[in-house]
Amino acid sequence: MCDSCGCHTHGHAEKRVVEVHQSLLAANQEQAEKNRHHIEAMGAVAINMISSPGSGKTTLLEHTLERIGSRWKVGVIEGDIETERDADRIRKKGVPVVQITTGGACHLDAPLVHKGLHGLQDQSEDGRFDLIFIENVGNLVCPATFDLGEHERIILVSVPEGSDKPAKYPTTFTGANTFLITKTDLLPHFDFSLAEARQEALRIHPELEILEIAAPTGQGMDEWLAHLDGLLARRQG
Amino acid sequence: MCDSCGCHTHGHAEKRVVEVHQSLLAANQEQAEKNRHHIEAMGAVAINMISSPGSGKTTLLEHTLERIGSRWKVGVIEGDIETERDADRIRKKGVPVVQITTGGACHLDAPLVHKGLHGLQDQSEDGRFDLIFIENVGNLVCPATFDLGEHERIILVSVPEGSDKPAKYPTTFTGANTFLITKTDLLPHFDFSLAEARQEALRIHPELEILEIAAPTGQGMDEWLAHLDGLLARRQG
Repeated sequence: MCDSCGCHTHGHAEKRVVEVHQSLLAANQEQAEKNRHHIEAMGAVAINMISSPGSGKTTLLEHTLERIGSRWKVGVIEGDIETERDADRIRKKGVPVVQITTGGACHLDAPLVHKGLHGLQDQSEDGRFDLIFIENVGNLVCPATFDLGEHERIILVSVPEGSDKPAKYPTTFTGANTFLITKTDLLPHFDFSLAEARQEALRIHPELEILEIAAPTGQGMDEWLAHLDGLLARRQG
Repeated sequence: MCDSCGCHTHGHAEKRVVEVHQSLLAANQEQAEKNRHHIEAMGAVAINMISSPGSGKTTLLEHTLERIGSRWKVGVIEGDIETERDADRIRKKGVPVVQITTGGACHLDAPLVHKGLHGLQDQSEDGRFDLIFIENVGNLVCPATFDLGEHERIILVSVPEGSDKPAKYPTTFTGANTFLITKTDLLPHFDFSLAEARQEALRIHPELEILEIAAPTGQGMDEWLAHLDGLLARRQG
C-alpha cells in the first residue's frame, strides 16, 4: 500500500459534500415544484433541453421558432456559463428571451429559472405564454440532477458525438421524456449506429420517445412540431 | 415581487456547499501534488485530457498509441461515469489500461487517479512508464477544477461542436496548456471558424499552444507527436 494516499481526508470531506448536496437538492426540488405551478399559472408548459456543448440546442430552437411563427406565444430562458451569444441568436427570432449566466456553475437550478420566469413576464403585456423553452448549460451530466419545474425534459445527442452516449451517460437518460438524435444529415460521414443509440436509450428508459432531427435541412421537423403540438394539447386540453 | 421564491434557503445551502467544496478542493490539491511526485518517481509525465463527450479523446489516443508503438512505455487511465467501453478500445492497442468509473461524478479527482497509478504499476514489471494519458470523464466544465497531478492539461474541441466554445467555456481554457481542435477533416461540412476558435482561446489564455488534428486521416498527427516529444524531452531531459 502507498502511504501517500489522501483518501481518508477525501472521504470525510466527500461525506459532508454529499450531505450538503442533498439539502441543496431538496431546496431545489421545493423551488422546482413552485416553478411548475408558476409556469402553469402563466398558461404555459416548459421544456428543459439538456445536451453537451454543440449538440445543436440553439440551432434547433432557431428553426423551431421559425416554424411556430405566431401560432403559439413562446418564451426562451437561455442558460450559459458566460456570454449572451445564445440569447442574441434567439432574440433575432422576435421572441422574449432571458439570458442566465451561471458564472461557472455547470447547470441551471430552479431558483435561477424562477428569476428567468419573472424576466420573461416582464417582456410580456399579460405575462402569459403557451410554451417556454429552457436551454440548459451545455453539459450532459450535471443538469440531469436538477429539476427546474419543467413539464418535459429533452436530451439531445448529435451524430458526431457517437452512438455510445446513452450507454455511457445512463443517468442523464433516466430522467428524460424525449431523446432527440440531432444532425442526422451527417450520418453518412460518421460511424454512428441509430440502432445502438435507440437500443441503449430504451434499455435505460423503455418509455423514452425518440426522434431523429436535422434542423437546418428540415429532416424530422414535422414530427418534432407534432410532438410539441401533442405536449401542448395534453397539458392545456 | 414573487413570494414563492426559495432563494433564501437556497442561498444558505449554497454557502455551505461552497465552504465544503473548498475543503474538498484543498484535499484534492494536496493529493494532486502527491500524484505528481508519484508519477515522476515512476519516471513518467502525465497528460490530463479534457473535453465534451464525443470530441474524439479515445480515437486520438488509439491513433497516438499506434504511432508511438514501442518507442515509449505508455499507460492509460480511463475515466468514465459508467462502462468499460473506452478501456476495451485502448486495451486492444496492447498498453496497460485502468478503467475508473466514477459512478455518477462528472470528473476524475486526484484520489481516484492515485488508485489508477497503482493499477498501472500492477500491470508493469518494473512499475515504470514514460507517458501516462489520463482520459477524463466527457465533460467540458467539471474536470477543469480538479488537478489530478498531471504535467500537461489538454482541452479538445471538435469541429462539429462549434468555434464559439472557448468563449462560452473560458475557465476550462484558463487552466490548460494545449488546445486541440479535432475532427478538422470535417471543416468543409461545418460553419466552424478556426480564426474565431484560436482568437478567443488566446484571448483567454495567451500562452496556449493550439494544434489542429484529424486523427483518422492523420492530419496534424506529426505535429502532435512532435509536441509529445518536446514534452517528454523537457520533463525527462
